[in-house]
Amino acid sequence: MNRQSYADLHKHWIIPTTIGEEEKVALVRSDGVWIFDEYGKKYFDACSQVSCANIGHNHPKFTRFMERFWQNAGVKQAITVTMGTDFFHSNRTLLRERALDFEEIDLSPVALAERLAPHIFGKDNTIFGFQSTGAEGINLAIRYFRTITGKRCWISLEKAFHGRHGESRDCSDSNPNHWSENGRNGDVYFLPFPETHEDLKRAKERLNSIPLKDCACFIYEPVQGEGGGMRVGNYLRELEKILKGDGLYSISDEIQAGLGRCGKWFAYQQLGLDPDAVVIGKTLGNGIPVSAVGIKRNIVSNNPFPPGKVSGTFSMSPIGIAAANITMFIYEDEKIVENAATLSPMFDNLLFQAIAPFNENNGLTPCFKIDGIGFYKSIKPYDLSGRPNKFRRDKLVEKLREFNVWTLGASRAYPAVRLTPPLVSKESDIKFLCEQVAKAIRSA
Amino acid sequence: MNRQSYADLHKHWIIPTTIGEEEKVALVRSDGVWIFDEYGKKYFDACSQVSCANIGHNHPKFTRFMERFWQNAGVKQAITVTMGTDFFHSNRTLLRERALDFEEIDLSPVALAERLAPHIFGKDNTIFGFQSTGAEGINLAIRYFRTITGKRCWISLEKAFHGRHGESRDCSDSNPNHWSENGRNGDVYFLPFPETHEDLKRAKERLNSIPLKDCACFIYEPVQGEGGGMRVGNYLRELEKILKGDGLYSISDEIQAGLGRCGKWFAYQQLGLDPDAVVIGKTLGNGIPVSAVGIKRNIVSNNPFPPGKVSGTFSMSPIGIAAANITMFIYEDEKIVENAATLSPMFDNLLFQAIAPFNENNGLTPCFKIDGIGFYKSIKPYDLSGRPNKFRRDKLVEKLREFNVWTLGASRAYPAVRLTPPLVSKESDIKFLCEQVAKAIRSA
Repeated sequence: MNRQSYADLHKHWIIPTTIGEEEKVALVRSDGVWIFDEYGKKYFDACSQVSCANIGHNHPKFTRFMERFWQNAGVKQAITVTMGTDFFHSNRTLLRERALDFEEIDLSPVALAERLAPHIFGKDNTIFGFQSTGAEGINLAIRYFRTITGKRCWISLEKAFHGRHGESRDCSDSNPNHWSENGRNGDVYFLPFPETHEDLKRAKERLNSIPLKDCACFIYEPVQGEGGGMRVGNYLRELEKILKGDGLYSISDEIQAGLGRCGKWFAYQQLGLDPDAVVIGKTLGNGIPVSAVGIKRNIVSNNPFPPGKVSGTFSMSPIGIAAANITMFIYEDEKIVENAATLSPMFDNLLFQAIAPFNENNGLTPCFKIDGIGFYKSIKPYDLSGRPNKFRRDKLVEKLREFNVWTLGASRAYPAVRLTPPLVSKESDIKFLCEQVAKAIRSA
Repeated sequence: MNRQSYADLHKHWIIPTTIGEEEKVALVRSDGVWIFDEYGKKYFDACSQVSCANIGHNHPKFTRFMERFWQNAGVKQAITVTMGTDFFHSNRTLLRERALDFEEIDLSPVALAERLAPHIFGKDNTIFGFQSTGAEGINLAIRYFRTITGKRCWISLEKAFHGRHGESRDCSDSNPNHWSENGRNGDVYFLPFPETHEDLKRAKERLNSIPLKDCACFIYEPVQGEGGGMRVGNYLRELEKILKGDGLYSISDEIQAGLGRCGKWFAYQQLGLDPDAVVIGKTLGNGIPVSAVGIKRNIVSNNPFPPGKVSGTFSMSPIGIAAANITMFIYEDEKIVENAATLSPMFDNLLFQAIAPFNENNGLTPCFKIDGIGFYKSIKPYDLSGRPNKFRRDKLVEKLREFNVWTLGASRAYPAVRLTPPLVSKESDIKFLCEQVAKAIRSA
């Protein structure tokens, strides 16, 4: 079947999702950092499927674990795989017995908590809530802080994107399309994203008109993805300090920026931030919906949460929790975070060289700039007058595809091209990517 | 490990979800309609894991398909399994090639649409949106109707439960715990659930104070689960007719009541309702998060939806869509809906006999009543004065567990015990269930 046939069938049966059917490519196969379209054309996946594929596609250990998971389910009826474990405990010991020939692994929610805690607030100071989507994780965190403080309002940043449902949508600002039929939630206040000292100053001024005593928490992306095209919150630390001084709790949305993408386990660590809760999703389940919220244990101990406040059909679903355990096992086993951290300086370097001939904007030449940190980067095209240019962005995405690099615009709202390669990329992959970027830029 | 150890570990690592840790049993194995706790005790799963396990636990075909799905992913890298297909088309043909030795099956989103459509508004009159959770499906439907009408408000029913995030929470009313920190959404109006003619009359009166010209749609559960303990909306048809006459679209929430639970494919068909959209979830993916919204094609054709309005990381995720395709294949292959429909009269009969000695409430004796239809039933305990009694409800749940029947209260808010057995139950299973109910009731 060709691309047009897919587009026609989808248009016939399914209402539009993120992009129009004509813009979509039919992908038929994927292997590590590579994806293949229906004509056999091979692409380097330079957006890691919006950071869902940090360990690459069809990772052999992941697929093998999953195969054994279902084999065990079939042969030994080893677990109830049909819903979340909201109403029962999953068996820690038995899950240990569900071993693979090459590895024993504990797939329980408790094991997942034990795996994640050392990388967040530490083994003794992290407690978790598990949900199925990133947005649900955001909602859990906000709901928790609103409940324990008894304060209704919270603070977010302009152009933020935290999700499309409930509180996560309320504090998103990247695209009016997301909330237009609903209007804004009056409980949420937006501050400028503090990329520069000037932004910070404007944010501070804005604080004068916000009733801080009614605000429960402050939520941020340390690096702004969807809305900002990988803008780095260089002055977030100071803003967070001010707001925490006013009694607000802070939440770091690490759904995309976390789990090694920015060069450390979490972006807040890279930027010296001090969140009270961290929200993780996307690549956590390697394609299976699961999200986690890590909260500082001392806060939860002093402010317990009543049962029934956050839960859901798929909360702690055995399959989601198993997938997250396997992904985290692979992260440790293959030193995924360390790999990205090691290759980051080279990536920086090569990328800068690739755009070097085109990064001067003297008011006469359109140019390209690089934004972001670690493996969470973007290329931003500007026009003659120094304004971000959407047309040139789309052109660059097209050219990159021509040169076998699969990527996406950072969002429909911001003219930036994602360069967020899988964290398992090898040196040769990063070299290939940057060479193709250079070619695409020259011909874009 | 014993129950207390699980409870302690969970309490240490995980914030509370639906119920307290002490109330939970540690489940270690499940097979068809049976689940097993850590001491080897066997229970008939009389709540089908809140209607997530309609085809039973670890269904051999489902687990085998899944095993092969991951085997193919590993060996042939047959698909990108790492995120939703929001940005690309999944390959219909290739998925056909990913056949099992005993069955060829198409696992694409288009195939899922083709499988579901004949059972909803027909092959030529249904169009779909696919999401990952039931709540997201509800939100999609509401968002669609609010957008195309340009009207902000919508109508729901008292004690409804549609979900915990965003619009689905806004129109839920079963438990104040769900929204207490947020307050109610002023765009939503609640009418009495029309179980009786008296309810309908009150609902009609209430309409006088609602600005119907600003209302986009009306959402209902045909049988009220969580909030109502399987109350049947006998007068919903008339209420829906009135509201449609006033220009509102209607949405049937069939997340629990649909997919055969009430004796037909969908509960709205059993009750003669005329929804414009149907929301399906829970058992659709047999444990893997996936939901579907079927909308009347002629409405969508005349009111197209812009791209970007509804989507998400896991929208149309290959694994979720594959799971739903397999579940629907098993539904057809094993005539799941027909099985439940055939056994329903016997279930009715035996259940009535079981409670017969205790269903007289003459103002002197506490009694039990049965509610619901098909395989979506509950037992409601009343006290001496004819009021629903929570203490007796909890006692009955406890006694049922003693007699090897696993079930849950319909919700924390309503004193009813779920009797919603898997739709694959055999005659002998239903007989066993009703015998144990009789024993439990006698000793409760």
